[in-house]
Amino acid sequence: MADERNPPPKIDPLLEVRERRRGQRPGDQYVRVVRPFDDMFERGDEGELVATLRTVTARTGWHTTLRALRTLLIGRPIPSHREHEERLTKLKALAIFSSDNISSSAYATEEIMRILVLAGVGALALTLPLTLVIVVVLAIVATSYRQTIRAYPDGASAYLVASDTLGARAGLVAAGALLIDYTLTVAVSISAAVAAITSIVPELFPERVLIAVALVAVLALGNLRGVRESGTLFMAPTYLYVVVVLGVIGLGLARYLGGDLPAYEAPPGWLEAEATGPLTLFLILRAFSSGAVALTGTEAISDGVPAFKAPEWRNARTTLTWAAAIFGTLFLGISFLASSIGIVPDPSEQQTVLSQLTRALTGEGPYLYLVQLATALLLALAANTSFADFPRLSSFLARDSYMPRQFAFRGERLAFTTGILALAGLAMLLLVAFGASVTALIPLYTLGVFVAFTLSQGGMVVRWYRRREQGWRRGLAINGIGAATTGFVALIVASSKFAAGAWMVIILIPALMALLLAIRRHYARLDAALELIPITGALRTARGPIVIVPVARLDRPAAQAIAFARSVSPEAIAVHVTNDADAVESMRRQWPEWAGGMELVIVESPYRALIGPLLAYMDALQRQDPSRPVLVVLSEFVPRHWWENLLHNQTALRLKLRLFTRRNTIVADVPYHLS
Amino acid sequence: MADERNPPPKIDPLLEVRERRRGQRPGDQYVRVVRPFDDMFERGDEGELVATLRTVTARTGWHTTLRALRTLLIGRPIPSHREHEERLTKLKALAIFSSDNISSSAYATEEIMRILVLAGVGALALTLPLTLVIVVVLAIVATSYRQTIRAYPDGASAYLVASDTLGARAGLVAAGALLIDYTLTVAVSISAAVAAITSIVPELFPERVLIAVALVAVLALGNLRGVRESGTLFMAPTYLYVVVVLGVIGLGLARYLGGDLPAYEAPPGWLEAEATGPLTLFLILRAFSSGAVALTGTEAISDGVPAFKAPEWRNARTTLTWAAAIFGTLFLGISFLASSIGIVPDPSEQQTVLSQLTRALTGEGPYLYLVQLATALLLALAANTSFADFPRLSSFLARDSYMPRQFAFRGERLAFTTGILALAGLAMLLLVAFGASVTALIPLYTLGVFVAFTLSQGGMVVRWYRRREQGWRRGLAINGIGAATTGFVALIVASSKFAAGAWMVIILIPALMALLLAIRRHYARLDAALELIPITGALRTARGPIVIVPVARLDRPAAQAIAFARSVSPEAIAVHVTNDADAVESMRRQWPEWAGGMELVIVESPYRALIGPLLAYMDALQRQDPSRPVLVVLSEFVPRHWWENLLHNQTALRLKLRLFTRRNTIVADVPYHLS
Repeated sequence: MADERNPPPKIDPLLEVRERRRGQRPGDQYVRVVRPFDDMFERGDEGELVATLRTVTARTGWHTTLRALRTLLIGRPIPSHREHEERLTKLKALAIFSSDNISSSAYATEEIMRILVLAGVGALALTLPLTLVIVVVLAIVATSYRQTIRAYPDGASAYLVASDTLGARAGLVAAGALLIDYTLTVAVSISAAVAAITSIVPELFPERVLIAVALVAVLALGNLRGVRESGTLFMAPTYLYVVVVLGVIGLGLARYLGGDLPAYEAPPGWLEAEATGPLTLFLILRAFSSGAVALTGTEAISDGVPAFKAPEWRNARTTLTWAAAIFGTLFLGISFLASSIGIVPDPSEQQTVLSQLTRALTGEGPYLYLVQLATALLLALAANTSFADFPRLSSFLARDSYMPRQFAFRGERLAFTTGILALAGLAMLLLVAFGASVTALIPLYTLGVFVAFTLSQGGMVVRWYRRREQGWRRGLAINGIGAATTGFVALIVASSKFAAGAWMVIILIPALMALLLAIRRHYARLDAALELIPITGALRTARGPIVIVPVARLDRPAAQAIAFARSVSPEAIAVHVTNDADAVESMRRQWPEWAGGMELVIVESPYRALIGPLLAYMDALQRQDPSRPVLVVLSEFVPRHWWENLLHNQTALRLKLRLFTRRNTIVADVPYHLS
Repeated sequence: MADERNPPPKIDPLLEVRERRRGQRPGDQYVRVVRPFDDMFERGDEGELVATLRTVTARTGWHTTLRALRTLLIGRPIPSHREHEERLTKLKALAIFSSDNISSSAYATEEIMRILVLAGVGALALTLPLTLVIVVVLAIVATSYRQTIRAYPDGASAYLVASDTLGARAGLVAAGALLIDYTLTVAVSISAAVAAITSIVPELFPERVLIAVALVAVLALGNLRGVRESGTLFMAPTYLYVVVVLGVIGLGLARYLGGDLPAYEAPPGWLEAEATGPLTLFLILRAFSSGAVALTGTEAISDGVPAFKAPEWRNARTTLTWAAAIFGTLFLGISFLASSIGIVPDPSEQQTVLSQLTRALTGEGPYLYLVQLATALLLALAANTSFADFPRLSSFLARDSYMPRQFAFRGERLAFTTGILALAGLAMLLLVAFGASVTALIPLYTLGVFVAFTLSQGGMVVRWYRRREQGWRRGLAINGIGAATTGFVALIVASSKFAAGAWMVIILIPALMALLLAIRRHYARLDAALELIPITGALRTARGPIVIVPVARLDRPAAQAIAFARSVSPEAIAVHVTNDADAVESMRRQWPEWAGGMELVIVESPYRALIGPLLAYMDALQRQDPSRPVLVVLSEFVPRHWWENLLHNQTALRLKLRLFTRRNTIVADVPYHLS
């Protein structure tokens, strides 16, 4: 034990000064080497090191393989200081932020028709009027949101607006509604994208759930890589879609004016499969509610205000107006032509209405494929916006302690890893549960959106009234109409779609709110309990622990544990709990030569239990000096292969679990590695 | 840190001398109190304590509840010295050890008929001849086993006999076959017991799998309590069954001789459901293989030789002869009467042949219920013998390092807990997988039994030949005939039942053997690697560890960890890994007042990783002095409710997993409990 009395040379914690002994003979000099350590750390401010990329990437063994796979999938880590926001021109912003909204035109008409056709083909005549009503609502919402954008130029998420104006609880309702909304945006958009593909490649229809789940995985992976929303590449799908669908509408209008619209005949059986009842007011409201899905995505532009070029709010609201105008045109055009030609939705959902319309006008040719491809791409892009929105909102909530802290943590590529994975997982669940059917998902979708709209607009009303700035009456009126309209629509959706699925959302929003509040309460209680003030006293009275080493048999792992225990405390006690009286003798004989001056206590356990007697023994030791902690030194064998753990370590694991909950107890694990 | 320099009073590891300070004023005397500590420990030999029952039972919190539940279910712990074997009279031994064998008569006839009837009712005439052949085989096996019992009076398990005579590998084949056999004994006997019950209470038939699984659970629980096989209670079912079934047979024979056998008419549809092909030799062999199940359980008596009163071997073999004679009588009687009356097996397996026979002879009355009840009880008792045999064989295998060591460990009630639970689990799996159907299980059952027979008898042949003791020629001839017969039957069973399920056993036996060998190799390699000899040197050079404390924020848990680290090493280093440059300043400011002289190193992590930089930092520290271990002191928060772990500790857990595989690294967990 000479070395214990002769303490080893001091370790330099800042790695700058390395003392090295040259040669082995006595009398050799110490040489001081001053340098930053290898390439793992750079020198920071005083007392500070800065880790390099190698600390993250250069590990040995199977971690290298994992790391290589990870780099292949999501790329090399990005340092924090490279975080920056690229500002967007209106042209780019329109393409990126409006993709969610504009893409709704790919299925909004169809969803109206799917409800109306339940009352027979004649009822389809209501498609265009309902579309008009929805476009009017859209105009009201867009006008109303123009004001919100101006009032919250740093980001007008309904969560922020409602929290700011209506209080924390209203903010949480909005947050819950938005989290649901974003998740459903992914599920619905991806389902619609798959429908666009299966419309032209019907062979893929039986695999639609699989394809949808795979698409979500690709999106999640892309976002874990930290795909920048601003890439010019992302402009393409939106404009391509707008251009080709405007082409379809233009062609249709031309043939309509020329009295040359093609004849359309629904395949036999489609109508019998669908017409099931009379045309009631309730049915019309349901159709309206389905079509109201067209308004989803309006939120995206107001979320993204800070990303616009200056003056941000002005550019953002111009973009919002444009987006609404483009969307309205496409929506009206598609509804008008589908009604005029007399298209009937496919009850099996294999072919979309947009695909049928294009096919009727252009035939089965390259243009049809172009339209469907553009639709699928745009819908995927729309889903992608949720992969920015959901994690961002989660990180706000986590920073406000409403969600687990890991949601606020940026991963190696600066993306909010937990949020992205959570969104992907939830969306996949929905896709599997609802068979990747847009029609099945729609009833869940719209309600959350309109709840968030209403809270956001309602918040604006309160804000106008409180501030009474110049022009507040006009602003209050606009937002008031907006809030009333969206609130009314929310009620219609909630009642007409209640049985079809809206009830889930009605349960889910308060449940989410309760969960978020519970998490916040937990963190708050904890912070209070862990608070720091009277700690210095505790530190001063710290005393060396009572050290015990449970020894099962005299082998190398035990020797290692004993060596550690002695190096930490000269009073360490070895404890051998046994039910084998024969083995005691040989242990007692070997011990002195084995562990020198260390004390060995043998605890006979006639009931063959190990943990109970050990805990009781610890109790007895500690009662001699209750304020000292007890340090239990466990030797644990690290097998070469994980499955070998089945043959070992169960006792150590059980013991650790028990000790974890024991007060004033510290467990030190001394692993023994086979070399 | 005054207390560190002024070491605390020494703790007495043997708890005999307690030093207590009376009062708090300086000058007070120390008082030595000598006594065994409370009622947790008694004084043993020198340097030894003996744990009392209270160390096992007296724990706080939810452990008390668990303990109460456990005591309710399996009883209070039993100390090791109470282990003893009660010797059995022949009358008791016959009842207990032959239950497995005799109980086969409840289904053996039926299983022969179930195969024969596939060729139509006419083929059922072969039932009696096949029964005769099987009884002859039984006579051969019993005669052969009489010799084995004499040769191995300490227990003639096929594993022991084959290991001793044919080598370790043959022993393992026998062991594998027996493990399968015991498991199937439970599954088949319990299925048959349930069938005996559903024969009189058909309402229970739809729940047969559930009832069977529940029965296995009851047996497992009884055996965990350490039910003594020797209880007089266990005699009842065997003799009750023998008496009532002999009664049925006697009545049948009397009516047969009086020409007064009742007329029997199979319900309409039974025959059409079953007759599916011609009567081929293969079918006859299949029927024979099914009936060969009658021989299962012969092993049980030879396993239990040491439990007989002296002279053990002589009493055991007399008992074996009696058991075979009784079984043969019952089997022949049932087969004869069932053929004579012309009973046809129920294709739905709702009613057993024995039940139909009794019903035909005695009508639906109390005697029928008595027979069925006795049958069910006996079959449950037969299953119970496997709950003694399987864990005992497992413990032999575990002692020889062929199975995980926990199989050799006796639980609180002296039962082999792991073996009992493993058997119950496997039997339940089989019951669920095969719908608790005897007929479905039979093809898996018989092969293992005959493989074990063959190895055991073959081993005896080798033994006779090697030893050439007096009378060896006769002995060799008897065992040779036994081995040849059982080997031949094994071949017939393997080929005729191959497709029906025997293939599983043919795969399973070598797979089990490979597994047992792999486990043994693992333990052998390990023992070699952990061997002890050059350890004392290592102990002498043990040096104090480099101590680091990762500190995430300045709170109570961190303070506790720091206090522990300092008490263990004055050089301990605190490390704060962060990606938040703003927080660094406030930490740096608070630190000196907070942790006194302790050094704080701040590691900036621009890639936001925690574990990588920390590991790299540890590498760098250790490279300054590679032989010193590093002790990582982790503060961990212990939440009040387990689910709160979802909001905490993920990082600590991941870090611990990584550190567990790092060489020369010790992890100390300092838990912080909310008070």
